[in-house]
Amino acid sequence: MVTTQQILERAKRAKQRFNLTSEQKDQALFAMADSIEKNAEKILSANALDVEAAREQMNSVMIDRLTLSHERIVGMANGIRDVAKLPDPVGQVLDTVVRPNGLEIQKRRVPLGVVAIIYESRPNVTSDAAALALKSGNVSVLRGGKEAFRSANAIVEAIREGLESVGVDKDVVNLVQDTTRQSANELMTAVGYVDMLIPRGGAGLIRACVDNAKVPCIETGTGICHVYVDEFADLDMAVNIIENAKTQRPSVCNAAEVIIVHRAVAEKFLPMLKARLVDKRAAEGKTPVELRLDEYARGIIEGTAAGEADFDTEFLNYILGVKTVASLEEAIEHIACHSTHHSDCIVSQSKDNCDVFVAMTDSAAVYVNASTRFTDGGEFGLGCEMGISTQKLHARGPMGLCELTTYKYVIHGNGQTR
Amino acid sequence: MVTTQQILERAKRAKQRFNLTSEQKDQALFAMADSIEKNAEKILSANALDVEAAREQMNSVMIDRLTLSHERIVGMANGIRDVAKLPDPVGQVLDTVVRPNGLEIQKRRVPLGVVAIIYESRPNVTSDAAALALKSGNVSVLRGGKEAFRSANAIVEAIREGLESVGVDKDVVNLVQDTTRQSANELMTAVGYVDMLIPRGGAGLIRACVDNAKVPCIETGTGICHVYVDEFADLDMAVNIIENAKTQRPSVCNAAEVIIVHRAVAEKFLPMLKARLVDKRAAEGKTPVELRLDEYARGIIEGTAAGEADFDTEFLNYILGVKTVASLEEAIEHIACHSTHHSDCIVSQSKDNCDVFVAMTDSAAVYVNASTRFTDGGEFGLGCEMGISTQKLHARGPMGLCELTTYKYVIHGNGQTR
Repeated sequence: MVTTQQILERAKRAKQRFNLTSEQKDQALFAMADSIEKNAEKILSANALDVEAAREQMNSVMIDRLTLSHERIVGMANGIRDVAKLPDPVGQVLDTVVRPNGLEIQKRRVPLGVVAIIYESRPNVTSDAAALALKSGNVSVLRGGKEAFRSANAIVEAIREGLESVGVDKDVVNLVQDTTRQSANELMTAVGYVDMLIPRGGAGLIRACVDNAKVPCIETGTGICHVYVDEFADLDMAVNIIENAKTQRPSVCNAAEVIIVHRAVAEKFLPMLKARLVDKRAAEGKTPVELRLDEYARGIIEGTAAGEADFDTEFLNYILGVKTVASLEEAIEHIACHSTHHSDCIVSQSKDNCDVFVAMTDSAAVYVNASTRFTDGGEFGLGCEMGISTQKLHARGPMGLCELTTYKYVIHGNGQTR
Repeated sequence: MVTTQQILERAKRAKQRFNLTSEQKDQALFAMADSIEKNAEKILSANALDVEAAREQMNSVMIDRLTLSHERIVGMANGIRDVAKLPDPVGQVLDTVVRPNGLEIQKRRVPLGVVAIIYESRPNVTSDAAALALKSGNVSVLRGGKEAFRSANAIVEAIREGLESVGVDKDVVNLVQDTTRQSANELMTAVGYVDMLIPRGGAGLIRACVDNAKVPCIETGTGICHVYVDEFADLDMAVNIIENAKTQRPSVCNAAEVIIVHRAVAEKFLPMLKARLVDKRAAEGKTPVELRLDEYARGIIEGTAAGEADFDTEFLNYILGVKTVASLEEAIEHIACHSTHHSDCIVSQSKDNCDVFVAMTDSAAVYVNASTRFTDGGEFGLGCEMGISTQKLHARGPMGLCELTTYKYVIHGNGQTR
């Protein structure tokens, strides 16, 4: 078995030789996509073994995420073709100045180099990540979950075959062969080899990367997102937004976990909320949302009494914390203390209150009168996404191709000295 | 004594309340500058105690760096006034899109929040860093060296008095009172309190931050910078550039440490180099540069035989590694392996060779026919500098005001759901 260190060496060599034009990169991406379709049978066989092995440890939702079909393989290939069609971020001149001494200083967008991605069991992350990295001029080192290893390996083999078919160094896309914790640790500490590490997965994985990484690492994804219903809110709009933010897909990071209701409207609004999220859903045979209420809210509607932890938990489920406040300032303060700074929303018809909320809320995405579920590369018009950063350095919010690049200064002179 | 944790709590509260306009920030900066001048005597007395205490442990260069005078205090105050005159980066709209569903998505430049700076003994770093942080809307937590503590404390007291005089929360500028290693460690691990940590100092400090920091940290400064003399170089220009890059100020990170000479010109060039850097300097009573030569170069001129370490050392002194190569590619490869990716230069009249060198050299600043000494915020036209980043995430090269900011997405809707 090739070791993780050997893969890192390969990746570093590939980076030093990487010098493809935009056209060559796109040709390589189309070749990757074609090769994935051509190798569909091999990929499906490998995937069947993964699914077979996982059947006893995983629930049906997880099994579904892991399972590939012909249709999903075509989807993966088309995903790569979509990436090829995006504009190339590399080479863009971000700024040029000519200094009084005649030096021309250009700030140019360049690839990061080697991007490592640690992810979990969805096989399509393999092809997505490889495509985004290649389009942005980077060498990728992929480290998927153990459960999906055979699938990921078959996909990467197909990708590398495609690259070779158009004369591109296949080592620009690499899959770590070791799926034990050791290989993750090796990537986190690969100083001099990994230019950016992106963990995509649960809070535990992300915490481990942030805590242990010696290479630059992007903190992604954990979302305790809030919707604040202001005293000047359109209450019908508020209930629609909360229903969408909580129930459209509760397992994702941009779903709402806590709502904050101004007490001036609580008496009117909370019964509307309960009717929509609890009673209506129950009547329709859907999972009702469990409301975890603060004391004031419990004086108005029925629900579970909220414990302290309920305002600091990413439920990822049909559970919603409900907090009431006496003022906009108290809402902002609560969000400052309890948000993961991913996506937070105000529902209000007062422009002043919206402006204050926007100015004082320090989150990657701050919404006025719209669902937090829109925090997504596709929805933001980036065309793709490599994850959602909840940190402030380098990238914040959905990461597209530009967020996979850095810049360098190129200075042209004719003998200038200082 | 106020503890580091108490200072971090204060800084966090100050951040949550920070909401000054551009005019208010500039007014605060002018008040800081005036107050430093007004408190000159207090600052000089405190500084005298620092200098007295340091006299036995420091060499004269270090003592000179530490010592303040009336003139230097006016210089510090004027430095703050210069920062006030720079354009405000905060609030700038970096991008706006209106999506087909009517959502307006704006990418807005915002402060990072709390910026912590760990630095060593130069007192003016205290006022510079506080000013740059405030101008970019950030709360600063400064942690200076033990040797300069009394000076830094007097400067920060004057700054805070100035802030109060114009009604600005004085806790936007803070000095850590503990100068033991523990306080540095507390800053490195202050997750939830420090949004960006900038170490400014020697390689040991920077390494400690990169290794131990759990908060986002910018790697700054270490520079093993190269000048490559191509076979098509103007050799007079090459010797001028190298003389400047090596000897104008050898103790700084953008000074050249290694030159690489194409063998096609080595026989002609190396004697020119020795004449200028060794013989001429000796004749003028200046410190001659010690040349550490590879074997091929030793066949042409006299000098020390280079050991392996000489191509991986930041000398910060009158020492220069000299390596010869048979091709441009070999030069690029050497730089890829041995550079700290700070500043690297090609001297050549061949446009093709320059273009290849620029494309394949992965450094923060890549020079064509100019001295590496220009890598500096002032020289780049940024107006100021908080350090030079040698990492690729977030900031690369000289860090000005924009590099002390992040962005957030502000999304306005009218009830959109997904």
